[in-house]
Amino acid sequence: MSNVTTSAASMRVRAAFAAVEAVDRPEIWITLRGEDELLAEAASIDTAVAGGAHLPLAGLLLAVKNNVDVAGIPTTAACPGFAYLPEKDADAVAHLRAAGALVLGATNLDQFATGLVGTRSPHGAVRDSRRPGFISGGSSSGSAVAVALGLVDIAIGTDTAGSGRVPAGLQGIVGIKPTLGIVSTAGVVPACRSWDAVTIFARHLSTAELAMGVMARGSRPWPTDVRLAAPSKPRVAYPASLPALPDAWAAEFARQLDRLRDSGVDAEAIEFDAFLEAARLLYDGALVAERYAAVGDYIEGFDGGTDGQAGLDPTVGGIIRAAGKLSAHRYVADTEKLEELKRKALARLEGFDALLVPTAPFHPTLSEVAADPVGLNSLMGTYTNFCNLFDLSAAAVPAGEVEGAQFGLTVVGRTFDDAVVADIARRVEVTPAVPPLFAAGAEPAVQSMAGQPPSSLPWPVAAGAVALPLVVVGAHRRGQPLAPQLEDLGAAWDGPVRTAARYRMVSLGTVPPKPGVYRSDDGAELVGERWLLSEAGLGSFLAALPEPMLLGSVQLADGTSAVGFACDAVAAAGGEDITSWGDWLADRKGGIKGRSVWHTLGEAGPAAFSRGERG
Amino acid sequence: MSNVTTSAASMRVRAAFAAVEAVDRPEIWITLRGEDELLAEAASIDTAVAGGAHLPLAGLLLAVKNNVDVAGIPTTAACPGFAYLPEKDADAVAHLRAAGALVLGATNLDQFATGLVGTRSPHGAVRDSRRPGFISGGSSSGSAVAVALGLVDIAIGTDTAGSGRVPAGLQGIVGIKPTLGIVSTAGVVPACRSWDAVTIFARHLSTAELAMGVMARGSRPWPTDVRLAAPSKPRVAYPASLPALPDAWAAEFARQLDRLRDSGVDAEAIEFDAFLEAARLLYDGALVAERYAAVGDYIEGFDGGTDGQAGLDPTVGGIIRAAGKLSAHRYVADTEKLEELKRKALARLEGFDALLVPTAPFHPTLSEVAADPVGLNSLMGTYTNFCNLFDLSAAAVPAGEVEGAQFGLTVVGRTFDDAVVADIARRVEVTPAVPPLFAAGAEPAVQSMAGQPPSSLPWPVAAGAVALPLVVVGAHRRGQPLAPQLEDLGAAWDGPVRTAARYRMVSLGTVPPKPGVYRSDDGAELVGERWLLSEAGLGSFLAALPEPMLLGSVQLADGTSAVGFACDAVAAAGGEDITSWGDWLADRKGGIKGRSVWHTLGEAGPAAFSRGERG
Repeated sequence: MSNVTTSAASMRVRAAFAAVEAVDRPEIWITLRGEDELLAEAASIDTAVAGGAHLPLAGLLLAVKNNVDVAGIPTTAACPGFAYLPEKDADAVAHLRAAGALVLGATNLDQFATGLVGTRSPHGAVRDSRRPGFISGGSSSGSAVAVALGLVDIAIGTDTAGSGRVPAGLQGIVGIKPTLGIVSTAGVVPACRSWDAVTIFARHLSTAELAMGVMARGSRPWPTDVRLAAPSKPRVAYPASLPALPDAWAAEFARQLDRLRDSGVDAEAIEFDAFLEAARLLYDGALVAERYAAVGDYIEGFDGGTDGQAGLDPTVGGIIRAAGKLSAHRYVADTEKLEELKRKALARLEGFDALLVPTAPFHPTLSEVAADPVGLNSLMGTYTNFCNLFDLSAAAVPAGEVEGAQFGLTVVGRTFDDAVVADIARRVEVTPAVPPLFAAGAEPAVQSMAGQPPSSLPWPVAAGAVALPLVVVGAHRRGQPLAPQLEDLGAAWDGPVRTAARYRMVSLGTVPPKPGVYRSDDGAELVGERWLLSEAGLGSFLAALPEPMLLGSVQLADGTSAVGFACDAVAAAGGEDITSWGDWLADRKGGIKGRSVWHTLGEAGPAAFSRGERG
Repeated sequence: MSNVTTSAASMRVRAAFAAVEAVDRPEIWITLRGEDELLAEAASIDTAVAGGAHLPLAGLLLAVKNNVDVAGIPTTAACPGFAYLPEKDADAVAHLRAAGALVLGATNLDQFATGLVGTRSPHGAVRDSRRPGFISGGSSSGSAVAVALGLVDIAIGTDTAGSGRVPAGLQGIVGIKPTLGIVSTAGVVPACRSWDAVTIFARHLSTAELAMGVMARGSRPWPTDVRLAAPSKPRVAYPASLPALPDAWAAEFARQLDRLRDSGVDAEAIEFDAFLEAARLLYDGALVAERYAAVGDYIEGFDGGTDGQAGLDPTVGGIIRAAGKLSAHRYVADTEKLEELKRKALARLEGFDALLVPTAPFHPTLSEVAADPVGLNSLMGTYTNFCNLFDLSAAAVPAGEVEGAQFGLTVVGRTFDDAVVADIARRVEVTPAVPPLFAAGAEPAVQSMAGQPPSSLPWPVAAGAVALPLVVVGAHRRGQPLAPQLEDLGAAWDGPVRTAARYRMVSLGTVPPKPGVYRSDDGAELVGERWLLSEAGLGSFLAALPEPMLLGSVQLADGTSAVGFACDAVAAAGGEDITSWGDWLADRKGGIKGRSVWHTLGEAGPAAFSRGERG
């Protein structure tokens, strides 16, 4: 292996093991893999990359919550007696590995993913990454702290009531909780099967999005009208009152709202009761029977007093045993109540692109949680519990500090609005000023290892949502009068493009003024911009298009083609020829009329430019 | 009222009351409304129609199953003690009434809609419409028999396990069971809330479709890729073996398959086990807890021995009481099993447009059911039980007779494939040779009363599914080489059209040969055809369109506009002008080249023609 040890993935593996030792946080791991085994995998990755393979996650170090199968590592769900040895990776793990990620180990969790604190484990409470007297948050405790400390680049969590968001908030990292079913749960120990999601942690949203685009291959199809971006001026709702937040945290939330308003986000308070009621249904109602359906047979197998031997956490055991005594008709009735609350809550969100909430309401110490393990745990879920029950999507991002604690915000969106959520989260995210002590990988490595920059596409597109390209040259360009038509359809702006040199352009006498384009044997390159639309978005855009505008296949200078605009024969014949402008937004005298991004930025490629504009 | 008594709706009311008396089937009705009250309503309808109001169901007589609220009629669900007096109509009833339907009365049912036999009611067993020793089928027993006897034109049923289909099959009428949530269940006594559908009965599919288009205003939105028609050569699956069917019934099923194959339907046998297993889950599992959640509180209120006084059916009472003893975790586990069976079953339907099954497996007598009330009831649901559990759509239609019994077939489709189901059911339906004794209304009346023929549109379009018009003039016309592109997208053919006199046509040198159309100040009318597509269908059609074809707004001769084809400027300049043909399918010498439907049929309007082609 001498020829491999100096290459990138192998070096990163060595650095990760050194960091794991230096940081001395054994409670993070339930199983840490052997360095030699990982080095061998890293060597394969390095060889593949050197051979030209496209591995978007090449050499990224990955931690996996131990309720998610990794072939050859016992899946324990933090209950040693429950352990089984999986023969194959969970789907989510398999997708990340196939893209070049390296599994460093399996992480500690609140047992059976039952908790939001990170203390309910026979492997020990996972401590906060920076202040060891405080909790990590849970249930994906080890995964979140491994990322926060920089031991790994990405980590898999799971999330039923907030387990993929609360620890992200408390650890100052990113946690994406996708729409249910978008990531396969095959190979995951269920917590509440109806509401379980597989999530990703990373230190930066861009890394988390890259991983989601790879990992999300679930059985639930994206709808044909999926929204691919937030509008340029998003409307965001937030709770009119903030239960469970200390004054300083509430003040910080208000400051963050001001910052977002300053950046062009329209934020308005909404009545939050329906959201909070759903949380009560989860803790006080019959829905928790799902936990017994998942692991009740195992729990009952203990026959009374042997909990300690098999490592059953007393709080978790109590919750699950109680869940076995509930009646089916009460479960059905609570499901109905839940549907009613969902209708109410979604009505509150009418007209908004997303909901903004604090991720966790405060950051308790280990001893505070020990003194009130159930009460404090419930409070931690105040702003996360409703999300999966209502089938919403979410992204938790860091947003600075308050009183020495990390302050996190979560953007919550409708079902399948994952791209809208990511778009708004990008505006909310505040990259921490101080990097982690041990950065095993992170974004620069993502770029260098993969041999190309991360895609600028919304991650749902990478994950299979159909996005149809539409090239526009005039009034539908970003910032131009008709761009809102596309934004209303959830279109994502994908950067400037040039057509092939086979089109002519005329100025039409329309209001607002528009160019008309037609194919010609005597054509030129024209400057335009590409948007991405859902299938239904493109169809309804076409259906509303007025004469003399037409849509059809347009060839681009880069050899690809896309749907683009043309004008009809009467309009083409009647307009003033302005082909020589080359760009509708350039004025007649050859200068820059206003917003022609291409002219301003020169010949930078669309992908790179697009990232710059969005970053 | 002397000026109204001779008009249509009023005459129909008098005829209906006369028929109710003549037929002497008191067990059909729990509440029959007063004739004077109905005559007053009929007078309003007649006045409104005379004043030009568009009431598509004007004067149609409607029966309503008595678990569905009608303002002023006690809702009993066939349990007198349960009765309450609703102040307003259920949503479904309100929509039909607003369109001109007249409620004749509330009908008998298997108590709490628990049964498929029609015998479980303190108001008496509802007897078969033609052979009084046989059962009606249930639970929508009174509604089905009222339609079969011709006492009403349409009737509302409900359907959880087959209650809107089994009695349709046994009574030789049509029953449409739409996708769950497409018709609002507001104002309906729940049976199993997760799987309850409101259904419609009529003697002919066209009448049932007309009513569905009016009634279906539920909260569940149609998807943006909704299929609006079956392909011209549908692929239909059927069970490889037919449990519970006597030999003569199985032979009749085989004969019907032969008939459909002869008509151009492609029918293939599939493994049916996953469908049958779902039925067992409903009867032997924990899902039935939904029945206790719906009316358990009421049942428990009886305090033991007073069932008889309040009219609780002993079989029904036993089923619901047992449903109250089930545990929540078992319900959750059964829901999971159900999802797995659904995946299996849908995999069997891969590549098929629909599933064809016998509606009921046989037709038992009243005494046979009395001897084995639970066993025979379960058998009756063999081909209906799985449908709502799997979230499928269905239409039961008459298909002749076997051994003196009515033989019915049910077309089952995927979620939201209601238009596909209706399209195929139109090919399956066999209109009974002998009309009912008392035909209070029926289709001729629908046309005359509404002042126009029933729409040729698929009923989901009337019910709010977005359908975008696309006008084609060449290779995408019905039967032409590229029409399958549209059929694959679920497009519905909507008849011939003519463009306004402002387009020219050229012959392009493409393979297959295509016309190119462009707008011109010196244009002519061109013959085309209109298809209807979903938003996503139109978007993906556009995205796949090759140069030089374009799409945009086209004006039609009737003053409307639609999306239509154009060709680009290079193609327009290079093609041979064939504007004088007027129709791509007319040959150069002015004769008919092949399939030009417009020329063949002369100047008949598109709607009338479209009906003719489909009927």
